[in-house]
Amino acid sequence: MKKHIITLPGDGIGPEIMNSAHELLKAVGEKYNHEFTAESKDIGGIAIDKHNDPLPLETIEACESADAILLGAVGGPKWTDSKIRPEQGLLKIRKHFNLFANLRPVTIFDSLEASSPLKQSIVHGSDLMIVRELTGGLYFGQPSERRDGGQSVVDTLTYTYGEIERIVRIAFDTAMTRRKHLTSVDKANVLESSRMWREIVNTVSKEYPEVTVEHELVDAAAMKLITNPSYFDVIVTENLFGDILSDEASVITGSLGVLPSASLSENGLGLFEPIHGSAPDIAGENIANPIGMMLSVGMMLKYSFGLHEESAAIEKAVNQVLADGFKTADLKIDGAVTLSTAEMTEKIISCL
Amino acid sequence: MKKHIITLPGDGIGPEIMNSAHELLKAVGEKYNHEFTAESKDIGGIAIDKHNDPLPLETIEACESADAILLGAVGGPKWTDSKIRPEQGLLKIRKHFNLFANLRPVTIFDSLEASSPLKQSIVHGSDLMIVRELTGGLYFGQPSERRDGGQSVVDTLTYTYGEIERIVRIAFDTAMTRRKHLTSVDKANVLESSRMWREIVNTVSKEYPEVTVEHELVDAAAMKLITNPSYFDVIVTENLFGDILSDEASVITGSLGVLPSASLSENGLGLFEPIHGSAPDIAGENIANPIGMMLSVGMMLKYSFGLHEESAAIEKAVNQVLADGFKTADLKIDGAVTLSTAEMTEKIISCL
Ligand SMILES: CC(C)[C@H](C(=O)O)[C@@H](O)C(=O)O
Ligand SMILES: CC(C)[C@H](C(=O)O)[C@@H](O)C(=O)O
Repeated sequence: MKKHIITLPGDGIGPEIMNSAHELLKAVGEKYNHEFTAESKDIGGIAIDKHNDPLPLETIEACESADAILLGAVGGPKWTDSKIRPEQGLLKIRKHFNLFANLRPVTIFDSLEASSPLKQSIVHGSDLMIVRELTGGLYFGQPSERRDGGQSVVDTLTYTYGEIERIVRIAFDTAMTRRKHLTSVDKANVLESSRMWREIVNTVSKEYPEVTVEHELVDAAAMKLITNPSYFDVIVTENLFGDILSDEASVITGSLGVLPSASLSENGLGLFEPIHGSAPDIAGENIANPIGMMLSVGMMLKYSFGLHEESAAIEKAVNQVLADGFKTADLKIDGAVTLSTAEMTEKIISCL
Repeated sequence: MKKHIITLPGDGIGPEIMNSAHELLKAVGEKYNHEFTAESKDIGGIAIDKHNDPLPLETIEACESADAILLGAVGGPKWTDSKIRPEQGLLKIRKHFNLFANLRPVTIFDSLEASSPLKQSIVHGSDLMIVRELTGGLYFGQPSERRDGGQSVVDTLTYTYGEIERIVRIAFDTAMTRRKHLTSVDKANVLESSRMWREIVNTVSKEYPEVTVEHELVDAAAMKLITNPSYFDVIVTENLFGDILSDEASVITGSLGVLPSASLSENGLGLFEPIHGSAPDIAGENIANPIGMMLSVGMMLKYSFGLHEESAAIEKAVNQVLADGFKTADLKIDGAVTLSTAEMTEKIISCL
């Protein structure tokens, strides 16, 4: 297989972990006989510095002819108060490529269970997938503006039927490949958009008789993620609820650094990135955790290229290395040896 | 002191725990020489059943001449699919009486620390107050409707400058009575309303030079509530974020049943209610936890009547009873004796 990947290292630890992605792609390519080519472009803070634009046209054009996009991380204190902000690049690339389906797996590795802030008895066995709508809702609705000379302000939550239907379908399809249990999260006791969301979930559910569907209010879901995370299989929800709940869910693993994500469009183009941020405080020190990035490569191989065996091999290698007693500085595993970014990358690759 | 209270028992366990409130008021009145009169009115499901209206005019009128309102809980499976829903009564009473300031203390009682889903080392020492805006934002913004013959939907998040300013002021005032640390939660990297919110917080903060102010994004706050809850003192946020975060924060106590809340207006009228719901599954069994209700009475005495000593006495009695090894069925305290609703009420009153 021949695939062309655009890499967007971005800011902070982004470039370091993108190196790990390159090495991993090289190794997988050699072992399984694929030709992965990669080209690096700018996004986020570095793009603001170099092009005065968090998502330069050159980056967009390169992505347009790519088979997939890998992203490191964007943002940092340098740009916090600037008018143009790194995150705008992220929002713009999602919208431009219609990356409406954000998949956020929340997996608890056995060796990391003890480092969860939750009691081990509660977090044990948790394995869920949050399907977050990524290009609609309050994030992009218009009007979003000050009014009455600054005396009031408005933001707008809008969805079309089709926007809700397509993300709900992705969620059902995802549930079919897992434990067939879907929890749709909304605020139907308050929001009209949530009531429409709920109706569409119920309509689409008729096509998936094997999937058990439940509706949960967002406040109740925020509680249950803490009191009973293993209850969930697949969660589907709108953009802002998904932002909050997926971050909430991710910390119960005790290891933000190992979590990947995928953002998919209808035509197959996907953007893959670890969920940890740019961590500017440790940038350049060769101590960042490359696992989230490497598992994002795994998601890319699976979701964009259909390479299930290769993807599973990466997951297995990560599991193996953690179980063998190796970790990076951000992880808490009793008695494990702490490796640098480069060493951890090597170790995982050697286990492929 | 002479005060007239409207009690709204509502649904499920509401009436049982309202009995506890009555007994507590009687005891406090006798001990401290106050005359509390109470009159019961309908709200929620029972009001739908009796008056076909979750907030009958009679209830509104009675509340209008009251010094404070006590609420049990509303809702239940009986009304889940009905067109008129119990929660509408709650939203309507908040809006009608302009109860814009929702105070949700999140306190970890020593004896309950071990029953938190979080590790004891993480939850230890947590004591925060969430100040939630309760009458604006997405909950009440217009338009909130289907469009294009059901092909799209819109909800609206609006705030006026004044609506944000008054809740922010309450939060600063609250911080001044506590550890003087205020965290304002928003989504300023996406929402215009959040950017205005942030500006207003910064403006008002000039009047409170002693208070340390921080801005935190809602997704980051959802994480930190789990990884480091004792970091927070006072959190202030808009209606929907507050709904999610206050429920999330409440479960880390391991004891929803003991948490009270206050919803205050500008003219001093307040509504006080435990945060647990109507728990229809255990209604009528005399096993519901009355502590959330009794501490809500405590908040009423303090916030509406200025009776600080009486309020502190209730808190102290609750602490005492829990420390003495008594609990209700919902609480997990090793070796403690389980009491009924009535017994727990008596026990706390006897400790006053
Ligand atoms: C940076 C920000 C705009 C973004 C979001 O809210 O979507 C981030 O929090 C995320 O979840 O990817
Ligand atoms: C019942 C519902 C409308 C309400 C809300 O969302 O405000 C409840 O969740 C609460 O927090 O009091």
